[in-house]
Amino acid sequence: MSGQDSAAAAQFRLPVRVYYEDTDAGGVVYYANYLKYFERARTEWLRAAGHDQSALVSRWNVLFAVRSIQVDYRRPARLDDQLEIEARVISLGRASIDFDQVALSDTIELCRAQVRIACLDARTFRPRAMPAELLEVFR
Amino acid sequence: MSGQDSAAAAQFRLPVRVYYEDTDAGGVVYYANYLKYFERARTEWLRAAGHDQSALVSRWNVLFAVRSIQVDYRRPARLDDQLEIEARVISLGRASIDFDQVALSDTIELCRAQVRIACLDARTFRPRAMPAELLEVFR
Amino acid sequence: MSGQDSAAAAQFRLPVRVYYEDTDAGGVVYYANYLKYFERARTEWLRAAGHDQSALVSRWNVLFAVRSIQVDYRRPARLDDQLEIEARVISLGRASIDFDQVALSDTIELCRAQVRIACLDARTFRPRAMPAELLEVFR
Amino acid sequence: MSGQDSAAAAQFRLPVRVYYEDTDAGGVVYYANYLKYFERARTEWLRAAGHDQSALVSRWNVLFAVRSIQVDYRRPARLDDQLEIEARVISLGRASIDFDQVALSDTIELCRAQVRIACLDARTFRPRAMPAELLEVFR
Repeated sequence: MSGQDSAAAAQFRLPVRVYYEDTDAGGVVYYANYLKYFERARTEWLRAAGHDQSALVSRWNVLFAVRSIQVDYRRPARLDDQLEIEARVISLGRASIDFDQVALSDTIELCRAQVRIACLDARTFRPRAMPAELLEVFR
Repeated sequence: MSGQDSAAAAQFRLPVRVYYEDTDAGGVVYYANYLKYFERARTEWLRAAGHDQSALVSRWNVLFAVRSIQVDYRRPARLDDQLEIEARVISLGRASIDFDQVALSDTIELCRAQVRIACLDARTFRPRAMPAELLEVFR
Repeated sequence: MSGQDSAAAAQFRLPVRVYYEDTDAGGVVYYANYLKYFERARTEWLRAAGHDQSALVSRWNVLFAVRSIQVDYRRPARLDDQLEIEARVISLGRASIDFDQVALSDTIELCRAQVRIACLDARTFRPRAMPAELLEVFR
Repeated sequence: MSGQDSAAAAQFRLPVRVYYEDTDAGGVVYYANYLKYFERARTEWLRAAGHDQSALVSRWNVLFAVRSIQVDYRRPARLDDQLEIEARVISLGRASIDFDQVALSDTIELCRAQVRIACLDARTFRPRAMPAELLEVFR
Protein backbone atom coordinates (compact mmCIF):
# COMPACT_ATOMS: atom_id res chain seq x y z
CA MET A 1 0.00 0.00 0.00
CA SER A 2 2.62 2.47 1.05
CA GLY A 3 4.73 1.14 -1.81
CA GLN A 4 1.91 1.89 -4.18
CA ASP A 5 1.65 5.36 -2.70
CA SER A 6 5.30 6.01 -3.29
CA ALA A 7 4.94 4.87 -6.89
CA ALA A 8 1.87 7.04 -7.22
CA ALA A 9 3.82 9.95 -5.81
CA ALA A 10 6.61 9.40 -8.28
CA GLN A 11 6.09 12.18 -10.77
CA PHE A 12 8.42 12.42 -13.67
CA ARG A 13 9.10 15.42 -15.91
CA LEU A 14 10.82 15.44 -19.26
CA PRO A 15 11.70 18.62 -21.16
CA VAL A 16 10.76 18.39 -24.84
CA ARG A 17 11.47 20.89 -27.61
CA VAL A 18 9.06 21.35 -30.52
CA TYR A 19 10.77 20.88 -33.90
CA TYR A 20 9.46 21.18 -37.47
CA GLU A 21 8.93 17.39 -37.51
CA ASP A 22 6.32 17.79 -34.75
CA THR A 23 4.24 20.49 -36.39
CA ASP A 24 1.70 20.48 -39.20
CA ALA A 25 0.35 22.93 -41.78
CA GLY A 26 -1.99 24.38 -39.14
CA GLY A 27 1.16 25.83 -37.57
CA VAL A 28 0.85 23.75 -34.39
CA VAL A 29 1.97 20.40 -33.00
CA TYR A 30 0.13 17.59 -34.84
CA TYR A 31 -2.29 15.83 -32.51
CA ALA A 32 -0.75 12.36 -32.81
CA ASN A 33 2.67 13.68 -31.84
CA TYR A 34 1.67 14.32 -28.23
CA LEU A 35 1.44 10.54 -27.94
CA LYS A 36 5.12 10.39 -28.86
CA TYR A 37 5.94 12.97 -26.20
CA PHE A 38 3.90 11.06 -23.63
CA GLU A 39 5.70 7.84 -24.43
CA ARG A 40 9.12 9.48 -24.21
CA ALA A 41 8.21 10.61 -20.67
CA ARG A 42 6.97 7.14 -19.64
CA THR A 43 10.15 5.61 -21.09
CA GLU A 44 12.35 8.01 -19.13
CA TRP A 45 10.28 7.36 -15.98
CA LEU A 46 11.01 3.66 -16.50
CA ARG A 47 14.69 4.35 -17.15
CA ALA A 48 14.89 6.49 -14.00
CA ALA A 49 13.54 3.41 -12.18
CA GLY A 50 16.47 1.46 -13.61
CA HIS A 51 14.97 -0.25 -16.66
CA ASP A 52 15.15 0.27 -20.41
CA GLN A 53 12.25 -0.70 -22.69
CA SER A 54 14.62 -2.88 -24.71
CA ALA A 55 15.81 -4.67 -21.55
CA LEU A 56 12.22 -5.62 -20.72
CA VAL A 57 12.16 -7.72 -23.87
CA SER A 58 15.64 -9.21 -23.67
CA ARG A 59 15.57 -9.91 -19.91
CA TRP A 60 11.95 -10.87 -19.20
CA ASN A 61 10.37 -11.28 -22.63
CA VAL A 62 7.74 -8.70 -21.76
CA LEU A 63 6.86 -5.36 -23.24
CA PHE A 64 4.61 -2.54 -22.17
CA ALA A 65 1.86 -1.71 -24.63
CA VAL A 66 -0.77 1.00 -24.48
CA ARG A 67 -4.19 -0.57 -23.89
CA SER A 68 -6.14 2.69 -23.95
CA ILE A 69 -5.60 6.42 -23.97
CA GLN A 70 -7.89 9.38 -23.40
CA VAL A 71 -6.46 12.71 -24.55
CA ASP A 72 -7.83 16.22 -24.08
CA TYR A 73 -6.33 18.90 -26.27
CA ARG A 74 -6.70 22.34 -24.69
CA ARG A 75 -4.21 24.73 -26.28
CA PRO A 76 -1.83 24.31 -29.19
CA ALA A 77 1.96 24.12 -28.94
CA ARG A 78 4.04 25.76 -31.67
CA LEU A 79 7.43 25.51 -33.34
CA ASP A 80 10.35 26.12 -30.94
CA ASP A 81 8.15 25.88 -27.83
CA GLN A 82 9.89 24.34 -24.84
CA LEU A 83 7.48 21.91 -23.19
CA GLU A 84 7.53 19.83 -20.04
CA ILE A 85 5.94 16.39 -20.26
CA GLU A 86 4.78 14.83 -17.01
CA ALA A 87 4.21 11.15 -16.26
CA ARG A 88 2.55 10.29 -12.95
CA VAL A 89 1.53 6.79 -11.92
CA ILE A 90 -1.99 6.87 -10.54
CA SER A 91 -2.55 3.14 -10.17
CA LEU A 92 -0.35 0.07 -10.30
CA GLY A 93 -1.79 -3.40 -10.90
CA ARG A 94 -0.11 -6.79 -11.37
CA ALA A 95 -0.34 -6.54 -15.14
CA SER A 96 -1.08 -2.88 -15.80
CA ILE A 97 -0.09 0.67 -14.92
CA ASP A 98 -2.30 3.75 -15.16
CA PHE A 99 -0.65 7.07 -15.89
CA ASP A 100 -1.86 10.63 -15.76
CA GLN A 101 0.17 12.71 -18.20
CA VAL A 102 0.33 16.39 -18.98
CA ALA A 103 2.08 18.52 -21.59
CA LEU A 104 2.90 21.92 -20.13
CA SER A 105 4.21 25.16 -21.54
CA ASP A 106 5.44 27.09 -18.53
CA THR A 107 2.59 26.36 -16.14
CA ILE A 108 -0.08 26.26 -18.84
CA GLU A 109 -1.62 22.87 -19.50
CA LEU A 110 -1.76 22.21 -23.25
CA CYS A 111 -2.80 18.61 -23.32
CA ARG A 112 -3.69 15.96 -20.71
CA ALA A 113 -3.95 12.19 -21.04
CA GLN A 114 -4.96 9.15 -19.05
CA VAL A 115 -3.04 6.13 -20.26
CA ARG A 116 -3.45 2.47 -19.39
CA ILE A 117 -0.36 0.38 -20.02
CA ALA A 118 -0.55 -3.42 -20.13
CA CYS A 119 2.31 -5.83 -19.56
CA LEU A 120 2.37 -8.26 -22.51
CA ASP A 121 4.33 -11.34 -23.44
CA ALA A 122 6.71 -9.96 -26.10
CA ARG A 123 6.09 -12.89 -28.45
CA THR A 124 2.40 -13.67 -28.07
CA PHE A 125 1.21 -10.13 -27.19
CA ARG A 126 -0.98 -11.76 -24.50
CA PRO A 127 -1.38 -9.97 -21.15
CA ARG A 128 0.75 -11.33 -18.31
CA ALA A 129 1.74 -10.31 -14.79
CA MET A 130 4.79 -8.09 -14.50
CA PRO A 131 7.99 -9.82 -13.33
CA ALA A 132 8.11 -9.61 -9.50
CA GLU A 133 11.41 -7.75 -9.60
CA LEU A 134 9.93 -5.10 -11.86
CA LEU A 135 6.82 -4.73 -9.70
CA GLU A 136 9.07 -4.31 -6.67
CA VAL A 137 10.87 -1.44 -8.33
CA PHE A 138 7.65 0.36 -9.15
CA ARG A 139 6.51 -0.03 -5.52
CA MET B 1 -33.37 15.76 -37.34
CA SER B 2 -33.65 13.69 -40.47
CA GLY B 3 -30.65 15.62 -41.80
CA GLN B 4 -28.68 14.76 -38.73
CA ASP B 5 -29.70 11.13 -39.11
CA SER B 6 -28.44 11.03 -42.65
CA ALA B 7 -25.13 12.50 -41.53
CA ALA B 8 -25.00 10.02 -38.68
CA ALA B 9 -25.70 7.23 -41.12
CA ALA B 10 -22.88 8.35 -43.38
CA GLN B 11 -20.20 5.80 -42.74
CA PHE B 12 -16.95 6.14 -44.54
CA ARG B 13 -14.29 3.47 -45.14
CA LEU B 14 -10.71 4.04 -46.25
CA PRO B 15 -8.31 1.21 -47.10
CA VAL B 16 -4.89 1.70 -45.53
CA ARG B 17 -1.78 -0.39 -46.02
CA VAL B 18 0.76 -0.82 -43.18
CA TYR B 19 4.28 0.20 -44.22
CA TYR B 20 7.60 0.13 -42.34
CA GLU B 21 7.09 3.80 -41.41
CA ASP B 22 4.02 2.79 -39.38
CA THR B 23 5.63 0.02 -37.34
CA ASP B 24 7.97 0.01 -34.35
CA ALA B 25 10.59 -2.30 -32.86
CA GLY B 26 7.80 -4.29 -31.18
CA GLY B 27 6.95 -5.48 -34.70
CA VAL B 28 3.52 -3.83 -34.72
CA VAL B 29 1.94 -0.52 -35.70
CA TYR B 30 3.08 2.20 -33.29
CA TYR B 31 0.19 3.39 -31.13
CA ALA B 32 0.30 7.05 -32.22
CA ASN B 33 0.08 6.06 -35.89
CA TYR B 34 -3.55 4.93 -35.61
CA LEU B 35 -4.33 8.61 -35.03
CA LYS B 36 -2.85 9.31 -38.46
CA TYR B 37 -5.01 6.58 -40.01
CA PHE B 38 -8.09 7.96 -38.25
CA GLU B 39 -7.42 11.44 -39.55
CA ARG B 40 -6.88 10.22 -43.10
CA ALA B 41 -10.35 8.62 -42.95
CA ARG B 42 -11.96 11.78 -41.54
CA THR B 43 -10.25 13.84 -44.24
CA GLU B 44 -11.51 11.55 -47.00
CA TRP B 45 -14.99 11.60 -45.44
CA LEU B 46 -14.83 15.40 -45.68
CA ARG B 47 -13.52 15.25 -49.23
CA ALA B 48 -16.31 12.83 -50.21
CA ALA B 49 -18.69 15.52 -48.89
CA GLY B 50 -17.06 17.96 -51.28
CA HIS B 51 -14.51 19.78 -49.11
CA ASP B 52 -10.75 19.67 -48.68
CA GLN B 53 -9.12 20.48 -45.35
CA SER B 54 -7.02 23.14 -47.07
CA ALA B 55 -10.13 24.74 -48.61
CA LEU B 56 -11.65 25.15 -45.15
CA VAL B 57 -8.84 27.54 -44.31
CA SER B 58 -8.66 29.42 -47.60
CA ARG B 59 -12.42 29.70 -48.11
CA TRP B 60 -13.84 30.16 -44.60
CA ASN B 61 -10.79 30.72 -42.40
CA VAL B 62 -11.73 27.75 -40.25
CA LEU B 63 -10.02 24.50 -39.47
CA PHE B 64 -11.08 21.31 -37.75
CA ALA B 65 -9.02 20.41 -34.72
CA VAL B 66 -9.26 17.39 -32.47
CA ARG B 67 -10.59 18.44 -29.08
CA SER B 68 -10.42 15.00 -27.48
CA ILE B 69 -9.86 11.39 -28.40
CA GLN B 70 -10.42 8.10 -26.57
CA VAL B 71 -8.65 5.13 -28.12
CA ASP B 72 -8.90 1.43 -27.22
CA TYR B 73 -6.18 -0.79 -28.60
CA ARG B 74 -7.36 -4.38 -28.88
CA ARG B 75 -5.13 -6.27 -31.30
CA PRO B 76 -1.93 -5.25 -33.06
CA ALA B 77 -1.57 -4.62 -36.79
CA ARG B 78 1.62 -5.69 -38.52
CA LEU B 79 3.77 -4.83 -41.55
CA ASP B 80 1.96 -5.32 -44.89
CA ASP B 81 -1.46 -5.70 -43.24
CA GLN B 82 -4.30 -4.27 -45.30
CA LEU B 83 -6.60 -2.35 -42.96
CA GLU B 84 -9.93 -0.62 -43.34
CA ILE B 85 -10.41 2.60 -41.39
CA GLU B 86 -13.98 3.65 -40.65
CA ALA B 87 -15.25 7.12 -39.83
CA ARG B 88 -18.86 7.42 -38.69
CA VAL B 89 -20.45 10.66 -37.51
CA ILE B 90 -22.38 10.01 -34.31
CA SER B 91 -23.27 13.57 -33.46
CA LEU B 92 -23.18 16.89 -35.25
CA GLY B 93 -23.25 20.19 -33.37
CA ARG B 94 -22.96 23.78 -34.56
CA ALA B 95 -19.26 23.91 -33.70
CA SER B 96 -18.28 20.29 -33.26
CA ILE B 97 -18.54 16.80 -34.75
CA ASP B 98 -18.28 13.51 -32.89
CA PHE B 99 -16.90 10.50 -34.73
CA ASP B 100 -16.77 6.84 -33.93
CA GLN B 101 -13.80 5.29 -35.71
CA VAL B 102 -12.56 1.75 -36.11
CA ALA B 103 -9.46 0.15 -37.60
CA LEU B 104 -10.34 -3.26 -39.00
CA SER B 105 -8.32 -6.14 -40.40
CA ASP B 106 -10.84 -8.23 -42.32
CA THR B 107 -13.72 -8.11 -39.87
CA ILE B 108 -11.52 -8.04 -36.77
CA GLU B 109 -11.55 -4.82 -34.80
CA LEU B 110 -8.00 -3.79 -33.95
CA CYS B 111 -8.54 -0.37 -32.51
CA ARG B 112 -11.55 1.85 -31.84
CA ALA B 113 -11.74 5.58 -31.13
CA GLN B 114 -14.23 8.25 -30.16
CA VAL B 115 -13.11 11.59 -31.51
CA ARG B 116 -14.48 15.07 -30.89
CA ILE B 117 -13.63 17.59 -33.59
CA ALA B 118 -14.01 21.31 -32.98
CA CYS B 119 -14.41 24.00 -35.60
CA LEU B 120 -11.81 26.71 -34.90
CA ASP B 121 -10.97 30.09 -36.34
CA ALA B 122 -7.81 29.31 -38.33
CA ARG B 123 -5.99 32.37 -37.02
CA THR B 124 -7.02 32.63 -33.37
CA PHE B 125 -7.66 28.90 -32.76
CA ARG B 126 -10.84 29.95 -30.91
CA PRO B 127 -13.97 27.78 -31.29
CA ARG B 128 -16.57 29.11 -33.70
CA ALA B 129 -19.71 27.87 -35.41
CA MET B 130 -19.25 26.04 -38.68
CA PRO B 131 -20.10 28.02 -41.82
CA ALA B 132 -23.80 27.40 -42.64
CA GLU B 133 -22.95 26.01 -46.05
CA LEU B 134 -20.64 23.45 -44.49
CA LEU B 135 -23.19 22.46 -41.86
CA GLU B 136 -25.76 22.01 -44.65
CA VAL B 137 -23.48 19.59 -46.44
CA PHE B 138 -22.97 17.47 -43.35
CA ARG B 139 -26.73 17.35 -42.80
CA MET C 1 20.90 -9.16 -69.65
CA SER C 2 17.55 -8.84 -71.32
CA GLY C 3 16.07 -9.84 -67.95
CA GLN C 4 17.90 -6.99 -66.31
CA ASP C 5 16.62 -4.67 -68.98
CA SER C 6 13.05 -5.70 -68.34
CA ALA C 7 13.54 -5.05 -64.63
CA ALA C 8 15.10 -1.71 -65.44
CA ALA C 9 12.15 -0.92 -67.63
CA ALA C 10 9.72 -1.80 -64.88
CA GLN C 11 8.51 1.56 -63.72
CA PHE C 12 6.06 1.68 -60.89
CA ARG C 13 3.70 4.51 -59.92
CA LEU C 14 1.87 4.89 -56.65
CA PRO C 15 -0.71 7.64 -56.01
CA VAL C 16 -0.19 9.33 -52.63
CA ARG C 17 -2.38 11.93 -50.98
CA VAL C 18 -0.86 14.62 -48.70
CA TYR C 19 -2.44 14.66 -45.24
CA TYR C 20 -1.87 16.92 -42.22
CA GLU C 21 0.50 14.27 -40.81
CA ASP C 22 2.83 14.86 -43.77
CA THR C 23 3.06 18.63 -43.51
CA ASP C 24 4.92 21.00 -41.20
CA ALA C 25 4.54 24.53 -39.89
CA GLY C 26 6.09 25.86 -43.12
CA GLY C 27 2.83 24.76 -44.77
CA VAL C 28 4.50 22.13 -46.95
CA VAL C 29 5.41 18.44 -46.83
CA TYR C 30 8.20 17.90 -44.29
CA TYR C 31 11.42 16.91 -46.03
CA ALA C 32 11.83 13.54 -44.27
CA ASN C 33 8.35 12.45 -45.29
CA TYR C 34 9.26 12.11 -48.95
CA LEU C 35 11.42 9.18 -47.82
CA LYS C 36 8.24 7.53 -46.51
CA TYR C 37 6.53 8.10 -49.86
CA PHE C 38 9.52 6.69 -51.72
CA GLU C 39 9.53 3.59 -49.56
CA ARG C 40 5.81 3.02 -50.03
CA ALA C 41 6.38 3.03 -53.79
CA ARG C 42 9.32 0.60 -53.54
CA THR C 43 7.24 -1.66 -51.31
CA GLU C 44 4.35 -1.68 -53.79
CA TRP C 45 6.78 -2.30 -56.64
CA LEU C 46 7.98 -5.35 -54.70
CA ARG C 47 4.43 -6.43 -53.97
CA ALA C 48 3.52 -6.07 -57.66
CA ALA C 49 6.42 -8.46 -58.31
CA GLY C 50 4.76 -10.91 -55.93
CA HIS C 51 6.57 -10.32 -52.65
CA ASP C 52 5.76 -8.59 -49.36
CA GLN C 53 8.47 -7.01 -47.23
CA SER C 54 7.35 -9.13 -44.28
CA ALA C 55 7.56 -12.32 -46.38
CA LEU C 56 11.21 -11.54 -47.18
CA VAL C 57 11.99 -11.94 -43.50
CA SER C 58 9.78 -14.94 -42.73
CA ARG C 59 10.61 -16.86 -45.92
CA TRP C 60 14.27 -16.06 -46.61
CA ASN C 61 15.47 -14.29 -43.49
CA VAL C 62 16.50 -11.27 -45.53
CA LEU C 63 15.40 -7.66 -45.52
CA PHE C 64 16.01 -4.74 -47.82
CA ALA C 65 17.67 -1.77 -46.18
CA VAL C 66 18.54 1.60 -47.62
CA ARG C 67 22.31 1.91 -47.97
CA SER C 68 22.32 5.44 -49.32
CA ILE C 69 19.97 8.07 -50.67
CA GLN C 70 20.47 11.30 -52.57
CA VAL C 71 17.42 13.60 -52.60
CA ASP C 72 16.87 16.83 -54.53
CA TYR C 73 13.98 18.98 -53.36
CA ARG C 74 12.72 21.21 -56.17
CA ARG C 75 9.21 22.39 -55.35
CA PRO C 76 7.08 21.95 -52.24
CA ALA C 77 3.97 19.79 -51.97
CA ARG C 78 1.05 21.03 -49.86
CA LEU C 79 -1.91 19.73 -47.86
CA ASP C 80 -4.44 17.79 -49.99
CA ASP C 81 -2.12 17.56 -52.99
CA GLN C 82 -2.48 14.35 -54.97
CA LEU C 83 1.00 13.09 -55.83
CA GLU C 84 2.37 10.27 -57.93
CA ILE C 85 5.45 8.50 -56.61
CA GLU C 86 7.60 6.66 -59.13
CA ALA C 87 10.03 3.83 -58.52
CA ARG C 88 12.24 2.75 -61.40
CA VAL C 89 15.00 0.17 -61.12
CA ILE C 90 18.12 1.49 -62.80
CA SER C 91 20.53 -1.26 -61.78
CA LEU C 92 20.19 -4.70 -60.26
CA GLY C 93 23.13 -6.41 -58.54
CA ARG C 94 23.37 -9.71 -56.67
CA ALA C 95 23.02 -7.98 -53.32
CA SER C 96 21.72 -4.52 -54.17
CA ILE C 97 19.17 -2.61 -56.22
CA ASP C 98 19.46 0.98 -57.41
CA PHE C 99 16.28 3.00 -57.82
CA ASP C 100 15.52 6.32 -59.40
CA GLN C 101 12.47 7.81 -57.73
CA VAL C 102 10.38 10.89 -58.38
CA ALA C 103 7.52 12.61 -56.61
CA LEU C 104 5.25 14.28 -59.15
CA SER C 105 2.31 16.65 -58.92
CA ASP C 106 0.61 16.39 -62.29
CA THR C 107 3.66 16.38 -64.52
CA ILE C 108 5.71 18.67 -62.29
CA GLU C 109 8.69 17.08 -60.57
CA LEU C 110 8.73 18.06 -56.90
CA CYS C 111 11.46 15.84 -55.58
CA ARG C 112 13.83 13.25 -57.07
CA ALA C 113 15.93 10.59 -55.36
CA GLN C 114 18.57 8.00 -56.15
CA VAL C 115 18.34 5.15 -53.69
CA ARG C 116 20.63 2.18 -53.15
CA ILE C 117 18.99 -0.77 -51.44
CA ALA C 118 21.06 -3.57 -49.93
CA CYS C 119 19.92 -7.10 -49.23
CA LEU C 120 20.78 -7.90 -45.60
CA ASP C 121 20.57 -10.93 -43.37
CA ALA C 122 17.56 -10.07 -41.18
CA ARG C 123 19.32 -11.12 -37.99
CA THR C 124 22.91 -9.99 -38.43
CA PHE C 125 22.22 -7.00 -40.73
CA ARG C 126 25.21 -8.15 -42.82
CA PRO C 127 25.00 -7.83 -46.62
CA ARG C 128 24.20 -11.04 -48.48
CA ALA C 129 23.19 -12.10 -51.97
CA MET C 130 19.50 -12.06 -52.76
CA PRO C 131 17.78 -15.45 -52.83
CA ALA C 132 17.97 -16.79 -56.41
CA GLU C 133 14.21 -17.01 -56.67
CA LEU C 134 13.87 -13.34 -55.76
CA LEU C 135 16.57 -12.29 -58.21
CA GLU C 136 14.76 -14.28 -60.90
CA VAL C 137 11.58 -12.34 -60.28
CA PHE C 138 13.32 -8.99 -60.55
CA ARG C 139 14.88 -10.12 -63.83
CA MET D 1 37.41 34.52 -44.93
CA SER D 2 38.39 34.13 -41.32
CA GLY D 3 34.73 34.61 -40.48
CA GLN D 4 33.83 31.79 -42.78
CA ASP D 5 36.51 29.66 -41.17
CA SER D 6 35.11 30.27 -37.74
CA ALA D 7 31.66 29.31 -38.96
CA ALA D 8 33.15 26.25 -40.61
CA ALA D 9 34.88 25.37 -37.37
CA ALA D 10 31.64 25.70 -35.45
CA GLN D 11 30.71 22.11 -34.76
CA PHE D 12 27.56 21.42 -32.88
CA ARG D 13 26.58 18.23 -31.04
CA LEU D 14 23.13 17.27 -29.86
CA PRO D 15 22.43 14.17 -27.72
CA VAL D 16 19.41 12.22 -28.99
CA ARG D 17 17.76 9.20 -27.42
CA VAL D 18 16.13 6.50 -29.59
CA TYR D 19 12.49 5.88 -28.64
CA TYR D 20 9.90 3.41 -29.97
CA GLU D 21 8.57 6.16 -32.27
CA ASP D 22 11.93 6.19 -34.08
CA THR D 23 12.19 2.45 -34.74
CA ASP D 24 10.51 0.12 -37.23
CA ALA D 25 9.61 -3.56 -37.45
CA GLY D 26 13.18 -4.33 -38.54
CA GLY D 27 14.15 -3.47 -34.95
CA VAL D 28 16.21 -0.44 -35.93
CA VAL D 29 15.78 3.30 -36.45
CA TYR D 30 13.67 3.92 -39.58
CA TYR D 31 15.77 5.49 -42.32
CA ALA D 32 13.70 8.68 -42.67
CA ASN D 33 14.01 9.43 -38.97
CA TYR D 34 17.70 10.27 -39.20
CA LEU D 35 16.56 13.31 -41.20
CA LYS D 36 14.58 14.40 -38.14
CA TYR D 37 17.64 13.96 -35.94
CA PHE D 38 19.76 15.94 -38.40
CA GLU D 39 17.27 18.77 -38.46
CA ARG D 40 17.05 18.91 -34.68
CA ALA D 41 20.82 19.38 -34.58
CA ARG D 42 20.77 22.11 -37.24
CA THR D 43 17.96 23.85 -35.36
CA GLU D 44 19.91 23.77 -32.10
CA TRP D 45 23.02 24.98 -33.92
CA LEU D 46 20.93 27.93 -35.13
CA ARG D 47 19.50 28.49 -31.66
CA ALA D 48 23.01 28.40 -30.16
CA ALA D 49 23.82 31.19 -32.65
CA GLY D 50 20.92 33.18 -31.17
CA HIS D 51 18.06 32.45 -33.58
CA ASP D 52 14.94 30.29 -33.52
CA GLN D 53 13.49 28.84 -36.73
CA SER D 54 10.16 30.48 -35.92
CA ALA D 55 11.84 33.87 -35.45
CA LEU D 56 13.31 33.66 -38.95
CA VAL D 57 9.79 33.76 -40.31
CA SER D 58 8.32 36.37 -37.99
CA ARG D 59 11.33 38.69 -38.05
CA TRP D 60 12.69 38.41 -41.58
CA ASN D 61 10.04 36.49 -43.49
CA VAL D 62 12.61 33.86 -44.44
CA LEU D 63 12.87 30.18 -43.73
CA PHE D 64 15.58 27.61 -44.23
CA ALA D 65 14.60 24.70 -46.45
CA VAL D 66 16.59 21.65 -47.40
CA ARG D 67 17.56 21.84 -51.09
CA SER D 68 19.34 18.49 -51.22
CA ILE D 69 20.60 15.76 -48.94
CA GLN D 70 22.95 12.82 -49.45
CA VAL D 71 22.78 10.19 -46.71
CA ASP D 72 24.96 7.13 -46.16
CA TYR D 73 23.61 4.54 -43.76
CA ARG D 74 26.44 2.47 -42.28
CA ARG D 75 25.21 0.77 -39.10
CA PRO D 76 21.78 0.61 -37.51
CA ALA D 77 20.77 2.34 -34.27
CA ARG D 78 18.38 0.53 -31.93
CA LEU D 79 15.79 1.23 -29.26
CA ASP D 80 17.21 3.05 -26.20
CA ASP D 81 20.50 3.88 -27.93
CA GLN D 82 21.98 7.21 -26.89
CA LEU D 83 23.22 8.99 -30.00
CA GLU D 84 25.15 12.17 -30.68
CA ILE D 85 24.13 14.17 -33.74
CA GLU D 86 26.71 16.51 -35.19
CA ALA D 87 26.13 19.54 -37.40
CA ARG D 88 29.17 21.17 -38.95
CA VAL D 89 29.04 24.03 -41.42
CA ILE D 90 31.35 23.30 -44.33
CA SER D 91 30.41 26.20 -46.57
CA LEU D 92 28.44 29.40 -46.16
CA GLY D 93 27.02 31.26 -49.15
CA ARG D 94 24.81 34.34 -49.40
CA ALA D 95 21.68 32.25 -49.82
CA SER D 96 22.75 28.77 -48.74
CA ILE D 97 24.58 26.78 -46.09
CA ASP D 98 26.22 23.39 -46.53
CA PHE D 99 26.37 21.07 -43.55
CA ASP D 100 28.21 17.87 -42.90
CA GLN D 101 26.26 15.83 -40.34
CA VAL D 102 26.97 12.60 -38.50
CA ALA D 103 24.97 10.35 -36.19
CA LEU D 104 27.31 8.70 -33.71
CA SER D 105 26.89 5.97 -31.10
CA ASP D 106 29.91 6.37 -28.84
CA THR D 107 32.56 6.99 -31.44
CA ILE D 108 30.99 4.76 -34.08
CA GLU D 109 29.59 6.51 -37.13
CA LEU D 110 26.12 5.17 -37.90
CA CYS D 111 25.00 7.56 -40.57
CA ARG D 112 26.51 10.56 -42.37
CA ALA D 113 24.85 13.26 -44.44
CA GLN D 114 25.73 16.23 -46.62
CA VAL D 115 22.94 18.76 -46.51
CA ARG D 116 22.40 21.91 -48.56
CA ILE D 117 20.11 24.44 -46.93
CA ALA D 118 18.60 27.29 -48.93
CA CYS D 119 17.29 30.56 -47.58
CA LEU D 120 13.79 31.08 -48.97
CA ASP D 121 11.18 33.80 -48.85
CA ALA D 122 8.66 32.35 -46.37
CA ARG D 123 5.69 33.29 -48.55
CA THR D 124 6.85 32.64 -52.10
CA PHE D 125 9.35 29.85 -51.34
CA ARG D 126 11.73 31.58 -53.77
CA PRO D 127 15.46 31.64 -52.94
CA ARG D 128 16.75 34.90 -51.50
CA ALA D 129 19.88 36.18 -49.79
CA MET D 130 20.06 35.78 -46.03
CA PRO D 131 19.43 38.93 -43.99
CA ALA D 132 22.81 40.64 -43.40
CA GLU D 133 22.42 40.42 -39.65
CA LEU D 134 21.93 36.66 -39.87
CA LEU D 135 24.89 36.21 -42.19
CA GLU D 136 27.00 38.23 -39.73
CA VAL D 137 26.11 35.86 -36.93
CA PHE D 138 27.09 32.79 -38.92
CA ARG D 139 30.41 34.41 -39.78
